[in-house]
Amino acid sequence: MEDLKRIKIKELMDAPVVGKKVNVKGWVRTFRSNRFIAINDGSTINNMQAVVDFEAMDEQLLKRVTTGACVSVTGELKESLGKGQTVEVIVESLEILGDADPEKYPLQPKKHSLEFLREIAHLRVRTNTFSAIYRVRHAMIFAVHNFFNQKGFYNVHTPIITGSDAEGAGEMFRVTTLDLTNPPKNEDGTINNKEDFFGKETNLTVSGQLEGETAAMGMSEIYTFGPTFRAENSNTSRHLAEFWMIEPEMAFYDINDNMDLAEEFVKYLVKYALENCKDDLEFLNQRALDEEKGKPQNERSSMSLLERLQFVADNEFERVTYTEAIDILKNSKPNKKKKFQYLIEEWGADLQSEHERFLVEKHFEKPVILYNYPKDIKAFYMRQNNDDKTVAAMDVLFPGIGEIIGGSQREERYDVLKARVDELGIPEKDLWWYLDLRKFGSAPHSGFGLGFERLILFVTGMGNIRDVIPFPRTPDNAEF
Amino acid sequence: MEDLKRIKIKELMDAPVVGKKVNVKGWVRTFRSNRFIAINDGSTINNMQAVVDFEAMDEQLLKRVTTGACVSVTGELKESLGKGQTVEVIVESLEILGDADPEKYPLQPKKHSLEFLREIAHLRVRTNTFSAIYRVRHAMIFAVHNFFNQKGFYNVHTPIITGSDAEGAGEMFRVTTLDLTNPPKNEDGTINNKEDFFGKETNLTVSGQLEGETAAMGMSEIYTFGPTFRAENSNTSRHLAEFWMIEPEMAFYDINDNMDLAEEFVKYLVKYALENCKDDLEFLNQRALDEEKGKPQNERSSMSLLERLQFVADNEFERVTYTEAIDILKNSKPNKKKKFQYLIEEWGADLQSEHERFLVEKHFEKPVILYNYPKDIKAFYMRQNNDDKTVAAMDVLFPGIGEIIGGSQREERYDVLKARVDELGIPEKDLWWYLDLRKFGSAPHSGFGLGFERLILFVTGMGNIRDVIPFPRTPDNAEF
Repeated sequence: MEDLKRIKIKELMDAPVVGKKVNVKGWVRTFRSNRFIAINDGSTINNMQAVVDFEAMDEQLLKRVTTGACVSVTGELKESLGKGQTVEVIVESLEILGDADPEKYPLQPKKHSLEFLREIAHLRVRTNTFSAIYRVRHAMIFAVHNFFNQKGFYNVHTPIITGSDAEGAGEMFRVTTLDLTNPPKNEDGTINNKEDFFGKETNLTVSGQLEGETAAMGMSEIYTFGPTFRAENSNTSRHLAEFWMIEPEMAFYDINDNMDLAEEFVKYLVKYALENCKDDLEFLNQRALDEEKGKPQNERSSMSLLERLQFVADNEFERVTYTEAIDILKNSKPNKKKKFQYLIEEWGADLQSEHERFLVEKHFEKPVILYNYPKDIKAFYMRQNNDDKTVAAMDVLFPGIGEIIGGSQREERYDVLKARVDELGIPEKDLWWYLDLRKFGSAPHSGFGLGFERLILFVTGMGNIRDVIPFPRTPDNAEF
Repeated sequence: MEDLKRIKIKELMDAPVVGKKVNVKGWVRTFRSNRFIAINDGSTINNMQAVVDFEAMDEQLLKRVTTGACVSVTGELKESLGKGQTVEVIVESLEILGDADPEKYPLQPKKHSLEFLREIAHLRVRTNTFSAIYRVRHAMIFAVHNFFNQKGFYNVHTPIITGSDAEGAGEMFRVTTLDLTNPPKNEDGTINNKEDFFGKETNLTVSGQLEGETAAMGMSEIYTFGPTFRAENSNTSRHLAEFWMIEPEMAFYDINDNMDLAEEFVKYLVKYALENCKDDLEFLNQRALDEEKGKPQNERSSMSLLERLQFVADNEFERVTYTEAIDILKNSKPNKKKKFQYLIEEWGADLQSEHERFLVEKHFEKPVILYNYPKDIKAFYMRQNNDDKTVAAMDVLFPGIGEIIGGSQREERYDVLKARVDELGIPEKDLWWYLDLRKFGSAPHSGFGLGFERLILFVTGMGNIRDVIPFPRTPDNAEF
């Protein structure tokens, strides 16, 4: 009987064949009345109910059916009369594959705090919340590749270890094989980086954009999808030291094409989740509603998770220039009543998350794309507009999340880029190859970056970025 | 006229509409007879021929149509009478988007050595060979995700920065934010790692397997696809310091299920390439044939690239135990005639690439899966067989490549694993969570790793692993 091939619970539930003999393997979630075993195998959030006749079963065996134990059950599939499932397995044989001592197993059938679960990140995947998040995360990974593949974009693996420190997106992690206790030094006391593995100083990448551009200037439309790193000491619910980014880069796109693509892309992802992750999103929707019950009325969201997702999928994003946004903010109630921590006084101010949230959540009440920012608050590679003051940058701002996408048209004019690089004092040795792209067969081009974990926060309705990546890396935390 | 939306060359060629006015943008490959511009936009290996009436054109403009320049042409699509293309664009307007000074542009229409092209990795994407390789690489990335998604596997992002150094697959890179010139030290002179960013020593991962197992023990079937690192000083055509791996991990799979999946997986990938990368593979096939012409007869392959791919797709892999393989090798001609550098004298010997190649290329003449290896030459987590001598390990060996996949059934028995960990002196503080998987709800499970660049070597027929990843990292080389 045990030779019967295991079938996944998702398959069984998607197309149940009543009367068929099946083998199901998975982990016990609960065991009620010495009769009903709820088994979950991670293929779906739904448990399979296995019904045992305890009078016909070995008592010692049944005692081992505890929460967290791994079991294999074989029996006939029957229509279920109970609530919450359409079919159940009438158990003919039961095998314990792995015990879970109830005195020691940390995941008992009760509510655990997210903080506690982070400490057992190797086991939290066995909870409803985390397996739902990870299934949604998988669906989003697949949707990213599907979207770009259908459009004829090519995925490019840009390097993780980089010898170039001109990316300028933040503090970097050093990568080295030098003996830290006794590193080789030059005569002037500095580290002799020539002795390091790569013969120079190397760091973990903060962005694949610059290398991505080299690929776009030969293959037209490319995207990267890989880990990026920031060695910043920020212990917030929005920051990770290691996170994943998607960075498309397109030759022949101007800033408007870029905004079109960004909007189409996020909408595709959200729709894909709505269509392919129904059970998980319904669970997460309910979870978020339950969480909100504990909050005062004025802190609750006006929309549920599912409503928010549908709203983003259905509505056009508002496109607003930075200059228009400053006007709106200057004249806004919180600015006049000095409720903003950073008051908006003049054009040129960098926008803080309080301002972005006001625009998105109060003023427009929908996702907003801000574009044409002052050049002094943006990166050197962004294309300068004719007004000499702004660059063709764009940020997509989402309710509850803030910036989810940042991008720009890239400066394709050699002279303009070179002048900006010199002005900022970026050494040419780090950027000769990037400048080459403008020397030889240059073309207008654009690109953007989507922070993958921010997307997952939005789609799952979770509040802390540490809960949407399996093993979060933050200051003082690299367990597992 | 320039408002016409750009159309990709691939789209135009896949479904040409003769008589339609089109806009094509791309890089000039050649300009013949002041009349025929071959334009490539990276969407396909095929160039679009644009035909100009030089008498009607500005002479100064035409002078700027040089190899590598980026152009935009608009005109009517016509059937082509020339060889090598079915349609061409009769140019009505021509714009130079970016010049490429022929005196300075490094890529001229002649054969460049692969070594030279590696030094200009930011431009080599504009050659036929490299754009073909990168398109195939993209197709293989997509095929990996498609294969697993269809089967209900979930993609898991395992951490890149790891605090665990028990993976044991090789030398690691240190990740740090400490000041190397003056690092904080303990009283005994050792580095005070508590002051480092993560409060402990961290390294770049050599494998996502151990973390992948935690996910499989809750979601049943998962896979990772991410960068992995080896700080080994090997300057060979088969090794990179940074490379990509795919590591599926499956609960409820024994070693036979594991071999079945590995074989199905690689065959799927190879078939996907044959079906979806026809033009690129034909080009690479011809390229490999041309390369071989320079070699003596006895060093040439018995099959062409396309034949080799078809052969792998069509034939069952040979499954051979290590013990059987040792017998074959002991009695082989090269062993008896002492042609092997490492002679096979007794059971227990570690197999070298010369032995693997003999088995695959001479003895069986097909891909081989070797399994049940001596436990002493394999990793601590592999499941011990009942003979007490071997573990349920498996390696998939490919012609011309050697090991392309390595995997095993994992040791799921707590006591057996714990004894092995202690025997090898691996500190429990690094592995407590891995051992937990065997304490709570353990189950038989298996997994393997596919070296992605080795796959790309096989599918493209290239000889050096530095040529199948956009920006290779090797000792003393981290340019770009």
